[in-house]
Amino acid sequence: MPQPAINPWVRRFEEADTPHLSAEVVICGYGGAGACAALEARRAGADVLVLERAAGGGGSTAMSSCEMYLGGSGGTRLQRDIGLADSTENMIAYLQECFGSQGDEERIRRYAEGAAEHFDWVEALGVPYKRAAFLERTVVPLSDESLLFTGNERAYPFNRIAEPVPRGHVPSKEGDEGGRMFMQALMATVEAEGVRIQANARVLALLQDDTGRVRGVVAKIDGTECNILASRAVILSAGGFIMNRAMLERYAPEVLPYGEPYGNQWDMGDGIQMGMAAGGNIINMNECFLSFAFYPPAKLTYGLLVNSGGQRFINEDAYLARLGHHAAQQRKQEVYLLVQNEDYEPTMYMESRRMAGTGDSIAEVEGEAGLPAGALQATVAYYNKHAEHNEDPLFHKAAEWVKPLDKPPYALISYSPQDVQYQLGDGPGYLMFTLGGLQVQTTGEVLSPAGRVIPGLFAAGRTAAGLPRTSAGYASGMSVGDASFFGRLAGCAAAGHVKAEG
Amino acid sequence: MPQPAINPWVRRFEEADTPHLSAEVVICGYGGAGACAALEARRAGADVLVLERAAGGGGSTAMSSCEMYLGGSGGTRLQRDIGLADSTENMIAYLQECFGSQGDEERIRRYAEGAAEHFDWVEALGVPYKRAAFLERTVVPLSDESLLFTGNERAYPFNRIAEPVPRGHVPSKEGDEGGRMFMQALMATVEAEGVRIQANARVLALLQDDTGRVRGVVAKIDGTECNILASRAVILSAGGFIMNRAMLERYAPEVLPYGEPYGNQWDMGDGIQMGMAAGGNIINMNECFLSFAFYPPAKLTYGLLVNSGGQRFINEDAYLARLGHHAAQQRKQEVYLLVQNEDYEPTMYMESRRMAGTGDSIAEVEGEAGLPAGALQATVAYYNKHAEHNEDPLFHKAAEWVKPLDKPPYALISYSPQDVQYQLGDGPGYLMFTLGGLQVQTTGEVLSPAGRVIPGLFAAGRTAAGLPRTSAGYASGMSVGDASFFGRLAGCAAAGHVKAEG
Repeated sequence: MPQPAINPWVRRFEEADTPHLSAEVVICGYGGAGACAALEARRAGADVLVLERAAGGGGSTAMSSCEMYLGGSGGTRLQRDIGLADSTENMIAYLQECFGSQGDEERIRRYAEGAAEHFDWVEALGVPYKRAAFLERTVVPLSDESLLFTGNERAYPFNRIAEPVPRGHVPSKEGDEGGRMFMQALMATVEAEGVRIQANARVLALLQDDTGRVRGVVAKIDGTECNILASRAVILSAGGFIMNRAMLERYAPEVLPYGEPYGNQWDMGDGIQMGMAAGGNIINMNECFLSFAFYPPAKLTYGLLVNSGGQRFINEDAYLARLGHHAAQQRKQEVYLLVQNEDYEPTMYMESRRMAGTGDSIAEVEGEAGLPAGALQATVAYYNKHAEHNEDPLFHKAAEWVKPLDKPPYALISYSPQDVQYQLGDGPGYLMFTLGGLQVQTTGEVLSPAGRVIPGLFAAGRTAAGLPRTSAGYASGMSVGDASFFGRLAGCAAAGHVKAEG
Repeated sequence: MPQPAINPWVRRFEEADTPHLSAEVVICGYGGAGACAALEARRAGADVLVLERAAGGGGSTAMSSCEMYLGGSGGTRLQRDIGLADSTENMIAYLQECFGSQGDEERIRRYAEGAAEHFDWVEALGVPYKRAAFLERTVVPLSDESLLFTGNERAYPFNRIAEPVPRGHVPSKEGDEGGRMFMQALMATVEAEGVRIQANARVLALLQDDTGRVRGVVAKIDGTECNILASRAVILSAGGFIMNRAMLERYAPEVLPYGEPYGNQWDMGDGIQMGMAAGGNIINMNECFLSFAFYPPAKLTYGLLVNSGGQRFINEDAYLARLGHHAAQQRKQEVYLLVQNEDYEPTMYMESRRMAGTGDSIAEVEGEAGLPAGALQATVAYYNKHAEHNEDPLFHKAAEWVKPLDKPPYALISYSPQDVQYQLGDGPGYLMFTLGGLQVQTTGEVLSPAGRVIPGLFAAGRTAAGLPRTSAGYASGMSVGDASFFGRLAGCAAAGHVKAEG
C-alpha cells in the first residue's frame, strides 16, 4: 500500500497502466554494485534488466581506483601466491576495531568469510592482478603491483588489535585506472551473459502493490514514462547522495562547511529516496568518508599534524580518511603540517594548500603562522624529546615515521579545508562521499523501521548502509569491496526470491 | 495508504472497526510538549483528547529543572524587571553559533521571536518566577532565583559572537523542583479548561486513510484495543527514544559505549516510529545530549581538563553538554580534571568518579595516573606561563577562571565514562538523551522525505527534531523551551487544521 500523495517516489501498482517492459529482476543503477548484482542474478537463471540514468554504465566505481579490501580464509589467491597468509578472524578483529559500536557485526563476518572467494570471482572476469605487493605508505600504487596496505593496518590502534596484513587489491596497470578496467571487464561479462541494459533511463518511482510488495518501477526512457514490471525483485544500486545538496542539508549538515562532494553526477540519492518511499529505514545518514590526503609522498608522514592551538591530535601515519575524521573535529577544521625541509615535497593529490609559515626555528614558523606563542614550540619540544628514543608516547605513530624535527628550515603547511584544492575536487575542502543509506540485511533485503523485510526490494552499494560506517575506520577498498561483494549477494537473493503471486 | 504489512505502527483507517472514542485533536503523550499543545488546541476551540502511556502526565519535563532558554524582543518580562535588556538578533546570533550548519534557521528565528511572549504564557499558568538572577557558574540554582546563565553564553567562542545575556528561566523555589512545579500548574490548567485526559493508554498505531491522511490512533486502554478518531489532527508528543536500546543501536550507535540513558521510562521512541510508519522523515538521529557535569562547584573550573595524552581539549568554562561533546571525541573518552587542593570539592551531581593520581608535583600526579611521561607537565607549564598574565591562548577560557596551577597538592580526577556515576543515572557513563526525531515544520506538521506534509499529523518535543541539534551547542533550557514553545504552535496549528473530509 504505497503512499504516493505523501511521497512521489512510489506509485500504486494497482493503478499502473499496461507495462512497457518487464523482467524478473530489475536493477536501478549500473555501477559496481548494480553490475555485480546483475551478473549474479543472471547466473542464477533470472531474466535481468538494468536501468541506468547516465548514457553508460560505470558509476562511481569506474571513477575509483577499484581498490578492494580483501583477505581472510587463509589468504586470497593473490596474497597466497606471494607468500602471505591471512586469517578470517584477524580480518574480523581489524574491521571491528575500524567501526566499533557503529559496525554491523553480521555484515563484517559475512564479508570477511567471503572476501577471498570474491577475489577469485573478480579475477575470473578478466581483471588483471599482478602477483606483487607495493608495501610503502601510499594511497594507490602508480606502479603495477596489485597488493598494498590500504591505510590503517600498520597504524595505532589497529596494529595493537590485529596483525597487519596488506589487503588492498588493485587491478594491475601503471597509473590509476583500476575502476575503469574493472567496470569494463565486468560490464563486458554482464552483457555477454545476456543481461539487458537500458541506458538513459531515469527511474522515477517504485511500483508497490497494496500488500507492500515492490512490483517494478516507473522510468523515463526517451521522454516517455514507462512502467517496468519486476516479477521477482527490484534492486536499488543507484549510489549515495553526495551530489544532492538538499539531502546533505537534511541528513549530513555537519560536513557541509568543509566537505567537497566527490562522486559521479548521479549520486543524487534517488535509490535511497525510493527505498524510503516504499517504507525502508535509513541509518548512518550523517556519516561521510572524508579525505585528508596530505600524503603521498610518504615522507611527509615524518611531519607533525597540529591544530590551530599547535597541538597534535592523531598519529600522522593513519589512513587519509581517519585523518579526515580527526581533522574535522578540530576547531574550524584548521589543521597544519609541520615538516622539515628534507622531508618536504608537494602533496601529490592536491593542486594547492597554503604555506602558513616558514623559518629556521619553530618559534619563527609559529610566529609567522600566527599560532599561539610558544604552543608549537612546546609540542615540538615534547615530540623531539621522545623521538630521540624513536617513541611517540602521545599518539603512537609507528617508529619508522618518528624522528626529531631538528633540521631547519621548517615549513608549516595549512591543510585547512578552505586552503586545500584536490585535483579531483570542484572546489576547496576535503573530498567526501556519503556512508549512509537504506538499512539492509546481508542479502540486500531492505528493512522497514519496524525490522520487516519489504518484499521484492533490495539495495546494494552506497544506496545501502554498508560495511564502512565512519571515516574514522574507513580504508581504501571498503566501498568498492562492499558494493561488489554485497551487490553479488543481492543479485543471488533477488533471483532466488519467491516469485510474486498474481 | 498505510503499509501495515511492512510497518505495524500504522493501520488502515478504511479497515478500522467502529471507533470507541473520538476528538478533534488527539495528542499522544502528556509531557511538556503534549500538555502545551493540548492547552493551545483547546483554547483555539478544539475538542482535545490526550492519551498517556503512564499512569499520569509529566513525562521527562517533570523530571527536569524546567529551565527554559528565553529572551529576545527587548527582554522577557523577567529580564526587564531586573533591568536586563535582550535583543532577538543577539539571541539568534547565539543560537546560530550553537548549532552551525546543523541548526534549523527558520526554527531558530521563530523561537527567538516568540520566546519573550512564551515566558508570559508560562507565568500566566501560575508558575512562580522570582525577579532575581543567580549569575554564578552553575547548572541550576538551588536557591530561589529564577534567572541564570544557562551554560555557554560567557564562554568562548560564544562570547565573541554574541553579547552574553542570562536566558535561563527557572521556576522559583529552593531546590530543584522546577519541572514538577511547571507540569502541575500546566496540567491543572489543561484539565480545568476542558481537555480530556486518558492515562494508562498505550498508543499502538496511527490510523491512516488511503489518501495518506492521519485519521486517528489505535490505543490499548484497560486491555482493550480502541480505535480513536481524530477529526482534525493527531499530535505525536511521546518523547525521544533514549530508553529504546534497539533504536539506539540502529540510529545512535556511537554513544552506546559511553552514554547512560536519562529520561522517563516511556521515552521509547513510539511517536517517532509511528510518524515514520505514516511516511514521516527522520533527521538528526545520531545526535544526543551528553552531560559532562564535572561542575558545580564552580571553582573546579580553575582546573584543567585533559585527555589520556595529558592534552587540554576545551575551555573548561563551557557548559556541561559542550564538554560532553568534546570529551566524547577524546580517545576512548578518557578525560581527567587536574585541580589544586584549594579548588577541590567533590562534583555535586556525581556519586562517584575516580582519583587517578595525587601529589605535590605535577610529575608525581602524572606518574601515579600513568599518563605519558612529561605530557601533563608540558601542558601545565604552558598553561601556567600564560595564566600568569590571566590568559589562555589555546582555548580562551574566560579570564575569571584562569590562574596558574602552582599550589600543591594536586589531584587528577578521572571523569572517564566508566569512572563516573551520576546521581540520576542507573549505571556509569555520561547522562544522555536523544536529539533526533521526525522532521517537522515550525507548525509541527510532519514532513515526508520528499518534503510533503503528512495531512493530519503533527509532532513536538523530542519526538521531533527540534531546536537543539547537537550537544556541542546545547545549553540548559533548550529542550523544555523548545518542547513547550513548539508544542504550543503545534496545538494551535492542529486545531486550525482543515477538517478531514468524509
